[in-house]
Amino acid sequence: MASIADISLSAAINLLSALAFLVAFAVLRLQPFNDRVYFPKWYLKGIRGSPTGSTAVKKFVNLDFRTYIRFLNWMPAALHMPEPELIDHAGLDSAVFIRIYLLGLKIFAPITLLAFAVLVPVNLTGNTLEEQGAKNLTYSDIDKISISNIPFGSDRFWAHIAMSYVFSCWTCYSLYKEYKNVAAMRLRFLAAESRRPDQFSVLVRNVPPDPDESVTEHIEHFFCVNHPNHYLMHQVVYNANKLAAIVAQKKALQNWFIYYQNKYERNPSRRPTTRTGFMGLLGTKVDAIDHYTESIDTLSKEEAAERESVVNNPDAIMPAAFVSFKTRWGAVVCSQTQQTSDPTIWLTEWAPEPRDVFWENLAIPYFELNMRRLVMTVALFFLTFCFMVPIAFVQSLANIESIMKVFPFLKPVIQEPSIKSLVQGFLPGIALKIFLAVLPKILMAMSKIEGFTSLSSLDRRSASKYYLFILINVFLGSVITGTAFQQLQQFLNQTSADFTKTVGSTIPMKATFFITYIMVDGWAGIAAEVLRLVPLITFHLKNAFLVKTEQDREMAMDPGSLDFATSEPRIQLYFMLGQVYAPVTPFLLPFIVIFFGFAYLIFRHQIINVYNQQYESGGSFWPDVHGRVVMGLIISQILLMGLLSTRGTETSTLALIAQPILTFWFHRYCKGLFESAFVKFPLQEAMVKDTLERAVEPNLNLRVYLQNAYQHPVFQDNDFEKPAVVDDEEDNPLIKTTRPTRRVGKSESETGGC
Amino acid sequence: MASIADISLSAAINLLSALAFLVAFAVLRLQPFNDRVYFPKWYLKGIRGSPTGSTAVKKFVNLDFRTYIRFLNWMPAALHMPEPELIDHAGLDSAVFIRIYLLGLKIFAPITLLAFAVLVPVNLTGNTLEEQGAKNLTYSDIDKISISNIPFGSDRFWAHIAMSYVFSCWTCYSLYKEYKNVAAMRLRFLAAESRRPDQFSVLVRNVPPDPDESVTEHIEHFFCVNHPNHYLMHQVVYNANKLAAIVAQKKALQNWFIYYQNKYERNPSRRPTTRTGFMGLLGTKVDAIDHYTESIDTLSKEEAAERESVVNNPDAIMPAAFVSFKTRWGAVVCSQTQQTSDPTIWLTEWAPEPRDVFWENLAIPYFELNMRRLVMTVALFFLTFCFMVPIAFVQSLANIESIMKVFPFLKPVIQEPSIKSLVQGFLPGIALKIFLAVLPKILMAMSKIEGFTSLSSLDRRSASKYYLFILINVFLGSVITGTAFQQLQQFLNQTSADFTKTVGSTIPMKATFFITYIMVDGWAGIAAEVLRLVPLITFHLKNAFLVKTEQDREMAMDPGSLDFATSEPRIQLYFMLGQVYAPVTPFLLPFIVIFFGFAYLIFRHQIINVYNQQYESGGSFWPDVHGRVVMGLIISQILLMGLLSTRGTETSTLALIAQPILTFWFHRYCKGLFESAFVKFPLQEAMVKDTLERAVEPNLNLRVYLQNAYQHPVFQDNDFEKPAVVDDEEDNPLIKTTRPTRRVGKSESETGGC
Repeated sequence: MASIADISLSAAINLLSALAFLVAFAVLRLQPFNDRVYFPKWYLKGIRGSPTGSTAVKKFVNLDFRTYIRFLNWMPAALHMPEPELIDHAGLDSAVFIRIYLLGLKIFAPITLLAFAVLVPVNLTGNTLEEQGAKNLTYSDIDKISISNIPFGSDRFWAHIAMSYVFSCWTCYSLYKEYKNVAAMRLRFLAAESRRPDQFSVLVRNVPPDPDESVTEHIEHFFCVNHPNHYLMHQVVYNANKLAAIVAQKKALQNWFIYYQNKYERNPSRRPTTRTGFMGLLGTKVDAIDHYTESIDTLSKEEAAERESVVNNPDAIMPAAFVSFKTRWGAVVCSQTQQTSDPTIWLTEWAPEPRDVFWENLAIPYFELNMRRLVMTVALFFLTFCFMVPIAFVQSLANIESIMKVFPFLKPVIQEPSIKSLVQGFLPGIALKIFLAVLPKILMAMSKIEGFTSLSSLDRRSASKYYLFILINVFLGSVITGTAFQQLQQFLNQTSADFTKTVGSTIPMKATFFITYIMVDGWAGIAAEVLRLVPLITFHLKNAFLVKTEQDREMAMDPGSLDFATSEPRIQLYFMLGQVYAPVTPFLLPFIVIFFGFAYLIFRHQIINVYNQQYESGGSFWPDVHGRVVMGLIISQILLMGLLSTRGTETSTLALIAQPILTFWFHRYCKGLFESAFVKFPLQEAMVKDTLERAVEPNLNLRVYLQNAYQHPVFQDNDFEKPAVVDDEEDNPLIKTTRPTRRVGKSESETGGC
Repeated sequence: MASIADISLSAAINLLSALAFLVAFAVLRLQPFNDRVYFPKWYLKGIRGSPTGSTAVKKFVNLDFRTYIRFLNWMPAALHMPEPELIDHAGLDSAVFIRIYLLGLKIFAPITLLAFAVLVPVNLTGNTLEEQGAKNLTYSDIDKISISNIPFGSDRFWAHIAMSYVFSCWTCYSLYKEYKNVAAMRLRFLAAESRRPDQFSVLVRNVPPDPDESVTEHIEHFFCVNHPNHYLMHQVVYNANKLAAIVAQKKALQNWFIYYQNKYERNPSRRPTTRTGFMGLLGTKVDAIDHYTESIDTLSKEEAAERESVVNNPDAIMPAAFVSFKTRWGAVVCSQTQQTSDPTIWLTEWAPEPRDVFWENLAIPYFELNMRRLVMTVALFFLTFCFMVPIAFVQSLANIESIMKVFPFLKPVIQEPSIKSLVQGFLPGIALKIFLAVLPKILMAMSKIEGFTSLSSLDRRSASKYYLFILINVFLGSVITGTAFQQLQQFLNQTSADFTKTVGSTIPMKATFFITYIMVDGWAGIAAEVLRLVPLITFHLKNAFLVKTEQDREMAMDPGSLDFATSEPRIQLYFMLGQVYAPVTPFLLPFIVIFFGFAYLIFRHQIINVYNQQYESGGSFWPDVHGRVVMGLIISQILLMGLLSTRGTETSTLALIAQPILTFWFHRYCKGLFESAFVKFPLQEAMVKDTLERAVEPNLNLRVYLQNAYQHPVFQDNDFEKPAVVDDEEDNPLIKTTRPTRRVGKSESETGGC
């Protein structure tokens, strides 16, 4: 096991690297030529423009040395913006997301204080490990202030049991308050929201085929009959996946075209050339500008043909549509009720906001959807459990003693104290980190196959998968496998009673590993996040080769966004580690608290200055967050029960059994109280908004407002002619819309009315 | 273990007792004076009148001996009525309930044939038990055709694995077909239904208190605002629990009054006396008729006062109401949507039909409801696991060898072969049966505390509890505890690997016990059901002492009803036994098949001739039935996996692991396809019925029709004056109602409109 010295070295290294990242960030962000990397959000909002300094140098490098002195100024600045303004600036999703970190702080700061005040003295005076020093189990200094130092069957365990209850109560109380708070924030947010197309619309899927009517007629008739006073219009969904691919390909070619054109302009003496084969490396040499002009022309024709065919071919219409209603009340009713006796057709759900729609998945039949989910569940199972193999291998190698046993010839190198500490401190964490980096994209692809229809639900679903993976592989995998390898021989020669005791003692022994992990993944990882190395490099590359106009520069920015699918499950691991180790090894807690505080600071800065969310779901992920924190809490309670039952306190199980039951009940209770705020839109709120709107804008032409709200993105910026009638209506001063005027792609043909 | 001879004796005894019950039934049912016990349903329907034979004797005893020869004629008669007529006659609930038995037949008849054709030969030629005869494990002849006879690690196990898949597939296929069928039946039933108050009504609970408005005003305003075009009226709920108690007490006194009056009329020379103290046994002697007249008068006054106070006291109005809408569409919308942003107030659900309402539970606040459910869950846990103790004790005693070991002095008595077989065959089954008879009432009381608002949901909830109990105590308790006692010493001296093997071998060893159980509980129990001993005796007692008029005789009948809460979980045990033993001990299967066939016959007869259901839920319990059969199937699959993994076929686990996963997926799939038909009423159906009704009865006055539909039963037959205006409307020939005209208790004051 790693000793205090190892931990200290590791902590020092990680703190230094974190500090290095922060200093680098502080310097880089002050350079005007990096401004678009570190403040893209302000550019996107139109508040910040490109620097227009007096001299050319000042445009690129900041020479005002006074600013460097206050290089940590961004930290208080990040905390400065009040929350309502933050919600206005960055959206509710982001504001709620950083509250997860705040929740971590709120939960663990008092727990840490309490644990150090009560449990550390109790543990420290246990004096068991010294006495057992001669025995087989290895131990470190940290274990002395952990539960391992309490003698077998001691009454001191009652302190741990009591504290476990206190910790659980505090966690539940904080969770309850936070759930209530977030639900209220969401309701306020929705109530304050201005008119949006999704308030009036419902996504209808699995429209059954009709021999006599086209899809659009069928939809119109169905809703005219069944929602007679509320139905307004609908927009069918086109299968534009192929068209989207062509558009994407054209865009890539255009980038190359611009690149070669820029090259030619800088050096007009030589026309740039390229090769027609694989990646411009093989094949015949041709004039690059001509080649790309030609290719783009061909694709443009292809695109136009495909566009034509999508719009005119009835087979391109998918059995799905966005149906809009005259009032929000009508949309709420339609989204929350069942339409027909067959629950596999005419499925209605509250429409996601237009930019949140995941277009590819709108037309999956019911049975296929079920099959896909089954297959993906099985796949997830195998994915989760096959990752165990390499992790187990690396984990077992990552132990100095094991390495020396397996590769005796490495002994002289490794026994060098500094190298030994380095290996001990870094290797296990890094190995895990690499594994985890591969995963999110696979999980997202799996979620897409499962057929979810909005980006937000894809994110939430991927997060669940990732959490499961982290729980099994990172947490349980690290606890069980590492130990199994270390003490396998010991186990095999023991009776079953002794065996369970040794397993129980595993959790405290793994504390040092997890401390290392927190420092590598949590501290240094978060500090690296603020530096944004990858966007920094890509921006400068693009800037050098592609950017010609101010608009191009706008495009070259990659503000990125909060990646809920990967970030949230990782935070959950910290919640779980904190809860598991709070009564067992309090020494781990300060590391968790520092992580939450530091991460809160960094991410608050990022959402203010950098990230640009792709969609706004109104914090609809909070029930998942809450549920997973509760799950971590229950796991920690069960693990404590298992641990104590092996320490000679048979009554402890009885004293602890109520804890997971009460916690689960608490979860159910909170779910009943708050979850519906995240799932359903209440009729009363809809009615209030409707009434208000009728009073304020009695002449609103909703049909025009909704006309093209739900259009596949490839149709949204094309050059088709807008019908004159719509122009008229839109120019009519009576009809105010908050929507920026868009060119309209399709005629009114598929937007019926009754 | 019981041998084939024991089983045969037990089978003979049970068959004989079943036959005796049937003969007794055949004779008794032909006697005219029992007519109201065995054919109450026809009397209630008004189709059958009291016998009016030519002579006095013929009125009581059937002397036509030819009818006795055909004494089993009721059996084909029971099967004769076609299903649509049966639904019309007995309601959908009953018709669907007996389909559970039919489902059992459909599932297990082919499985039995297949198991005997394939598995019995495979097992019989295994020849393991003879070779191991000298070892410690006892075995019987039945075990020879069970899986126990296959040698360790034999390839023959693949036959069992394959058959397990075949059985599961067949079961799932049958379940799917049946679910589909029942869902279609329900939808047809609901579509064909004539106008009923619950189609237009919604139960609203947790109306929040308002400082300025009374409950009824608050409700009216809320729904006028939020369902402006649909709200029609509402009926508040009065807290009439005390009044109901007074009414019940009065009724009991009236019974005694009639009893003494009858006595006096038969013997006018002596006025009957009673004592005023405990149960008429202690206290001063008084004239009985005067005493009861007086008591009834006092109670009548009390009742009138309480009735007055309930109607006029605003505190007696509970924060709940039945809100009715102008159309079914409006009611469907209100019941399926969320009303406000706080999900703990204004809770709406589809109103149960008036006679299905459980009035006491309509006004429980949200938090209290949650607390009650938690407490009841914990109570259920303890109830379930504390019953283990006595059952384990009786079970272990019920084994001949154990009895002889514990009480050596009983040896000479018990070793008598006939007594030995008797004890072996009966004792375990009967002990269980007694335990189970105590339970349902406790479980129903627990469900009532949990706060469900309709009798049908109380029944369903109690059934779930009872199923859990049966699963843990009857099934698992019998399998595990019995064995533990028998082979405890053997276990303690074994290593853990050998230990699991012995546990795995337990299931086949328990087959004979369950065969006995099926015969006692299934065969003889069902035969006793048809005889209706308790209602027979009570009817004749009441007839002798209380009945004066034809109407009294009507009241004396106790047709009873299908008791879903206890019957269904018991059927589920048979499903599970069949599924568990199908691949293990096929010998058990014929017993199951006979049970299902016999029970189907008996209960079809009973629902045609006897039972009178208290409510009609439209077969809404089927999702529970389906879910529990699937659960039994999954348990059986897991048990088979456990069993085979101890028989030296390591690969079998891999081959079987997919089974429970696929079964669970099947369950999810079916749930998605069919469950909504049982939970939600689709908008389309509502719209169709509304449109039709508008066309057929354009002048229907719905307000009058619904006026007093949801009134507490104590108000329904009182003598208050009906307001004149309603009389007028009701006599108007334009307004046809199918409802029998009732006296109206309360004025229109609480039935608002907007």
